Amino acid sequence: MTDALGRIFNATSIAVIGASNDPSKRGNQAIRKLRADGYAGAIHPIHPEADEIMGLPAHASVLDVKGDIDLALVCTPARTLPAILAQCGQKGIPGAVVLAAGFSEIGAKGAGIAAATLAAAREHGVRLIGPNTNGIFNLHNRMNLVGVQDVEPGAIGICSQSGNIMLGLVTEARRRGGVGFSSYVGVGNQLDVNLAEYLRHFGEDDDTGVPLFYVEGFQDGRAFLDTCREVTQKKPVVIYKSGRTEAGQVAASSHTGSLASGFALTRALLRQAGATVVDQSDKMLSVAEGLSKMPVPAGGRVAILADGGGHATVTVDALVDAGVELAQLSEATTARLRGLLPAAASCVNPVDVAGGTDGDPSVAADCAAAILADEGVDILMIVGMYGGFAARFNPALLDNEIDTSHRLAGLARRHGKPLLVQSVYAALRTRPIETLKEAGVAVFIWPEPAVRCIRELIDYARARRRNATCAPVLPDGPAAASRDILGPVRAEGRAAFYEHEAKALLGAYGARVREEFLARSEDDLARVAARLGDGPVAMKIVSRDILHKSDAGGVRLKVAGEAAMRAAYAGILASARAHDRNADLHGVLVAPMARSGVEVIVGVVHDPMFGPVMMFGLGGIFVEVLKDVSFRALPMSRADAHEMVSEIRAARILDGLRGAPPVDREALVDLMMTVARLALAHPEIAEIDLNPVILRADGYDIADARMILGPQGR
Amino acid sequence: MTDALGRIFNATSIAVIGASNDPSKRGNQAIRKLRADGYAGAIHPIHPEADEIMGLPAHASVLDVKGDIDLALVCTPARTLPAILAQCGQKGIPGAVVLAAGFSEIGAKGAGIAAATLAAAREHGVRLIGPNTNGIFNLHNRMNLVGVQDVEPGAIGICSQSGNIMLGLVTEARRRGGVGFSSYVGVGNQLDVNLAEYLRHFGEDDDTGVPLFYVEGFQDGRAFLDTCREVTQKKPVVIYKSGRTEAGQVAASSHTGSLASGFALTRALLRQAGATVVDQSDKMLSVAEGLSKMPVPAGGRVAILADGGGHATVTVDALVDAGVELAQLSEATTARLRGLLPAAASCVNPVDVAGGTDGDPSVAADCAAAILADEGVDILMIVGMYGGFAARFNPALLDNEIDTSHRLAGLARRHGKPLLVQSVYAALRTRPIETLKEAGVAVFIWPEPAVRCIRELIDYARARRRNATCAPVLPDGPAAASRDILGPVRAEGRAAFYEHEAKALLGAYGARVREEFLARSEDDLARVAARLGDGPVAMKIVSRDILHKSDAGGVRLKVAGEAAMRAAYAGILASARAHDRNADLHGVLVAPMARSGVEVIVGVVHDPMFGPVMMFGLGGIFVEVLKDVSFRALPMSRADAHEMVSEIRAARILDGLRGAPPVDREALVDLMMTVARLALAHPEIAEIDLNPVILRADGYDIADARMILGPQGR
Repeated sequence: MTDALGRIFNATSIAVIGASNDPSKRGNQAIRKLRADGYAGAIHPIHPEADEIMGLPAHASVLDVKGDIDLALVCTPARTLPAILAQCGQKGIPGAVVLAAGFSEIGAKGAGIAAATLAAAREHGVRLIGPNTNGIFNLHNRMNLVGVQDVEPGAIGICSQSGNIMLGLVTEARRRGGVGFSSYVGVGNQLDVNLAEYLRHFGEDDDTGVPLFYVEGFQDGRAFLDTCREVTQKKPVVIYKSGRTEAGQVAASSHTGSLASGFALTRALLRQAGATVVDQSDKMLSVAEGLSKMPVPAGGRVAILADGGGHATVTVDALVDAGVELAQLSEATTARLRGLLPAAASCVNPVDVAGGTDGDPSVAADCAAAILADEGVDILMIVGMYGGFAARFNPALLDNEIDTSHRLAGLARRHGKPLLVQSVYAALRTRPIETLKEAGVAVFIWPEPAVRCIRELIDYARARRRNATCAPVLPDGPAAASRDILGPVRAEGRAAFYEHEAKALLGAYGARVREEFLARSEDDLARVAARLGDGPVAMKIVSRDILHKSDAGGVRLKVAGEAAMRAAYAGILASARAHDRNADLHGVLVAPMARSGVEVIVGVVHDPMFGPVMMFGLGGIFVEVLKDVSFRALPMSRADAHEMVSEIRAARILDGLRGAPPVDREALVDLMMTVARLALAHPEIAEIDLNPVILRADGYDIADARMILGPQGR
Repeated sequence: MTDALGRIFNATSIAVIGASNDPSKRGNQAIRKLRADGYAGAIHPIHPEADEIMGLPAHASVLDVKGDIDLALVCTPARTLPAILAQCGQKGIPGAVVLAAGFSEIGAKGAGIAAATLAAAREHGVRLIGPNTNGIFNLHNRMNLVGVQDVEPGAIGICSQSGNIMLGLVTEARRRGGVGFSSYVGVGNQLDVNLAEYLRHFGEDDDTGVPLFYVEGFQDGRAFLDTCREVTQKKPVVIYKSGRTEAGQVAASSHTGSLASGFALTRALLRQAGATVVDQSDKMLSVAEGLSKMPVPAGGRVAILADGGGHATVTVDALVDAGVELAQLSEATTARLRGLLPAAASCVNPVDVAGGTDGDPSVAADCAAAILADEGVDILMIVGMYGGFAARFNPALLDNEIDTSHRLAGLARRHGKPLLVQSVYAALRTRPIETLKEAGVAVFIWPEPAVRCIRELIDYARARRRNATCAPVLPDGPAAASRDILGPVRAEGRAAFYEHEAKALLGAYGARVREEFLARSEDDLARVAARLGDGPVAMKIVSRDILHKSDAGGVRLKVAGEAAMRAAYAGILASARAHDRNADLHGVLVAPMARSGVEVIVGVVHDPMFGPVMMFGLGGIFVEVLKDVSFRALPMSRADAHEMVSEIRAARILDGLRGAPPVDREALVDLMMTVARLALAHPEIAEIDLNPVILRADGYDIADARMILGPQGR
C-alpha cells in the first residue's frame, strides 16, 4: 500500500476532478499553480461538460483519459465521492486527494457518506488522502496542490492534522532562509490512509531527511509506534503532539491506571520508538532543521569556539541546563590552538579566541580544524559573531569570511561531526552566514535553540543505537502454572486476583516471591506461626469484595507471635465485617514483614491507543504528589527498562542516600522484564500493580500485588 | 548621583577626547555616527594638537571648550585617564564614557591604573561609565556612541555586561520589526557606576518602558534588589542572569548553607524584588517587548479568539503548561458572539470563528469587542492567521483588514486589557500585521512566546501588588533574653550554639519551643523522668565538638521510662567518647518525642552577594535529591513567606495526603517570620538551620535547631 503513496507523491500524471475556469475555485488554482511551478507531468482536467479548461483538453471522466494517471485531485462535493472513486479504481489510479468536507465531522448524514466513500475506496483499490484536507505537495516533483506560495524545496517532510500549522512552518522557513521542505500532507479526517502509513512513506522517501509530524490524536497508536521504530533507524522523526489537557482515558482501578495517560505517556512511548518529541510548537522547525542538517554524532561531548562576549557564557548555561557534556580538549589540541591564537585566548573548552579572528576570520576555520580533529570532541558549536567580521570590522574581509564559511562546512563534512553556528549576525543574513546555510550548516541567532538541537540529536543517536541493538523481549507463551492460578479467578467470576494469586502468577514467571500463607481459620495460625517463627509478620484480609484493604481495617503489620496473630486475625475479620457486612471473606494472608528499603511501583495498563504500557515510579508521595513516573510500551527491551529506572527525577534515591548502599538495579530490571512477559502472555489481564515493591541492596520484596482481568478475560 | 546619569544619557553637548581624522578610530566613528543620526547637541573634538577635526573646531583640553559639556567620550588609553578625569571635573562634566581596556582585567599594573582612575573620578566628581565598555546610546537623543547601525528607537532600555548580547538583541529586533530601544549602556568593568545605579536611571527615564538587563555577576546584589523593588513599582524590569554553573559560594556547615547558592537563589531573590527573570537568552527580547506593549492586567484570566486550526489547540496546551487560567465567558458574551458568527462557531473559550472572519476580517474586531467587554476576561489572545486574510483569500480585503488592526489596537487601549496576536502571517510582516505592531500590539509567529509573555505579565502584576501592599517586616531590636543566651556561646568561644540554646533564642523571639531538659549527669534523669513521665523521649548529645550528632552515635529516639533513659544516657556518652575521645561533652538533651507530621526545613544563611536569605523546603529526600526549596531575601513580608511555602513543587503534601488534615500554614508562616526577625536582629548569626520542623494540623515542633555565629560574631 505504501507503494501507492510513493506513486501519489511522485505523480507524473494528475487528474483534476472538478477542474474549473473560475479562478476562485480550487480546481482552477491547482492547475494554475502546477503550471506556474513548472510541473513536468501531465494534467488532465475532468469536467462533466467542458471540452477544454485553461487551455487543456478536458474529459467528462477519468475513464476517458488516455494513458496512466497517478493521482486524482478531487475538488467536488462529498456526495460525489463514491462514484468518482469507483471510476478512479477502474482507471487504475492509485490514490485520490479529497478536499471536500461534509463527512463524519458533520454528523450522521456525513458519516453515511464517509462509510460509502471508504467502502468505494477499498473496493476499487484507491487510497484516499483526506477528506477535509487542504491537500499535499511534493516540491521535488514541482507538484504543489496546496497553493502555498514561495516554499523552498528541502529535506523536511510535513505531515499535519492542521493546515494552519503547516502554514506557520512555511512562513517561518521563509523568514529564516536556508531551510525547505520535501513534501506535505494534510491528513484531514484520515478516513483511509492513517498517520502510520504517511510516516512509512516519508521514511522511504529519499527526498525527506526528517519527517515532521503535527499530531492531535492517533487512530492506531500502536501501528504508529511500530513504524516509528523502523523509520527512526534511517532518519530522525520529529513530532509535536498537541493535547496536554486530555482527560485520563484509562478506567483507573489501580494506581498505575490513574497515572498512565496523557501527554507524559505519549511522549515516553514516542521517544521509546526513537522519535524526537518537541513540546513547544515554535521549536518544531528549528529542531527539524537542525536534525536534517547534522550527521548522527558518535557521542555527546560538545566543544565551543567563541569569539568573546556573553554568548560563550550563555551557551555553557544552556548546555548545563540541558544536561549536555562539555568536551575536554586534548593537550595536543590546546597546544595547536595556542599556536593559532593570541596570548589572551582561552585554549581550553570553551575556547575564546580573544580577538584572534577579528583581523582574519580564516583563523576560525583553523581553530575548528584543530577542535574537530580532537577525538574527545563529538560536536562543535561556534558562537558569537561569526559571519559579521566583514560587516563589523572591515568590508575587505568579506571574501576571506565567505571562504571560511565554505571551509567550515567542509571540515564538518570531512570529520562527520555536527557543526552548529550561533551568530548575532544570523538575523541579518550576511553573505558568510548565507554561505554556511547553503553549505548545509545549521545557523542560529541565540544559543538556546542550537543547544536544543544538540540535546535532541544526542538523544536521537542514543535511541537509534538502543533500538538497533536491544530487541524488545517477547514471552514464549503463558507459563505452565498459569491455568491453575487463573482458573479459580475466572471460575468465581472475579475481576480482581487475590493478592496471593497475583503473587503466585508472578512467581510462575520467575519473579522472586516470598513464602506466605493463607489462613482460613484461626486454627491455621498455629501451623503458620510454627513455620514463620516469632519474627514479625504482616496480615491482610483476602476478600473479593474488598479492594482497598487498609481502608477496610484489613491490614495488621509487625504482628509477632502466635497469640498476637490470633488477636490480629480476629480483629481483621471484625473490621472487614464492620466495613462491609456482606463481604465474602476468603481468609487472611500472613507473610513475613518485608525488610525496609526503597519503595517503588511497577505496573502495567492497557492504553486504549497504545496497548500494554509499563509504568515505573518511586512509591508513596513521589508518585502521588510529584507524578515522578516513567512509561514504556510493551514489549520492551532491557535497555528500555534501565532507562525507565534512570529517568525518574528522584532516581538518585536508588543509588543510596546517607551512606545507604545502592539498590539492586539488575534485580529490579529482572522483575520489570518478568512483569512485561507476564503482561504480554496474558493480554486478558487489564491491569497489574505491584505497589509497593521494596528494593534493597540484595534484591526486592513484592509487598503487595494486584491484578485485574479485563472484561474479555473474565 | 542619578542626576548625573540623566544628564549623561540626555547630553546636549559631548566632548570626544581622542577625536581623530582617521576613520578606523573610535574617536572618528563616534563623531561620524552622531552627525549621521542628526544629533542636535554640540560636539567638541579634543585633540592635543589639531585645530580642527572632521570640520569641527578641536581643542587641546575640555577646559578650552566654551560652554557646558554634559558628557566626555574618552577614547584614549587607560594610563591617560586620571589626568583627563581631573580636567573633566574642573570643567564640571558630570560623566565620562571610557572605552579603554587595560584596567583591573589585565592584572596588577592595570589595577593600579584602575585605582588611580577611580580616585580621580571621585575626587573630581565625575561619574565613570566603563572602563572597557563599547559605549552607550540614547536613540531618543539621537546619541549613538556605539556605532551599531539601523536601531529603531523604542521603549526597551538595555544594560549589558556583554556588548555582543546587545548586538544580538538589536539584530533580532531588526528582523522582527515593531520593537525598538531607548538607551543602551555597556557597563564594562563597573569601576564606578554599578548595575543598581543604571537600573535607577532606567527607572527614572521616561523613554524607557522596560529596562532589560544582561547580568553576569552583581557587585552589590543587595543594592540591586532594593532598587529593583522600587523600579518595578513603576515599570517591569527584565533580567537574564548568566552563570548556571557558578559554584556554591557559601561555606556550607548547614543544610541550608549547602543549598543556598547559585541561579535558583538569584532568580528567587530577583523575582521577590519584582523582576521578570528570563532563563533563556532567546526569550529576552520577546518578553521585554511583550511587557513594554501591554498594560498590567487586573487578573490572569485569558480568552482565546481563534480562526480555526491547530493554533487554538497549541495555545491551550501552552497556557495549561504555563499554569495560566482560561477565562470563562459570560452568557451575555457567548450570546453576542453567536450573533456575530456562523452556526458552526464555538462561542465559548477558546472561541473559534469557524470561517466567520474569512470574508470580513472586521468581524474579528466585533468579536474582540464582545470578549474584551466581558468582566471575566483579563487578557485576550487572537490566534491563527489574522493579518493574512487579504493575502490568503482576497486582496480586496486589505483595507478592511488594516482598519480592523486599528480597531483591535484601539479596543485593547480602551479596555486597558492586554491584547496579543499570534499569526502565521507574522513572519511575512503583512500590512495588517505591521499596522498592529505600529499601534503597539505585540504580535507573535507561534503561540508559546505569546503565552510566555502572558505568564510573565501575570507574575509581574502579582509581584507589583504584593510589594506595594506587603511591607517587609523588620525587627524592633534584639529580644531581651538574647544577651543571656548569646553570652555563654561567646564566652566559651564557640561558633555553634548548643541545640537548647538555639531553641531558647527562638523561644525568646516567640517561636513555640517545647519543654526540654539538659541532663548533665545520670542522676539528673530521675528529675527529668519525673517531669516527662513515661512517654517516649528523644535524647541527644550536647557537645561543642560534635556537630553531626547522629554520626557520632549521640542520638537515641523513643526512649521510654527512667531505666531506659539511664541506659541511653550511658550509651550516648560512650558512643560520643568512642567517636572523639577528646570531645568536651556538655550533657544530654532530653525532650518528648515530636509527634509525627510533615518534616520541613527553615533556614537562614548570609549570602555574600545578597545578605541574609531564608530557605524553606520539605525535609529529607525532597531537599536532598530534588532540591525542592524556595528562597527569599530578608527582610521579607508575610506574603513572601506564604509564596515560599506555596512555590515548592511538593507543596501539595502540606495540604494533607490520603485523608490527612492540612498542616497549619499560618503557624508555619509565623515561625518563618519569627526566624526572619531573629536573623535580622542578630546579623552576627551566620547560619540558622531548623531541621526538621515537624508540621501538624495544630502547629509545629522544632525537632532540631542549629545556629552558627559568623567570625565577626564570636
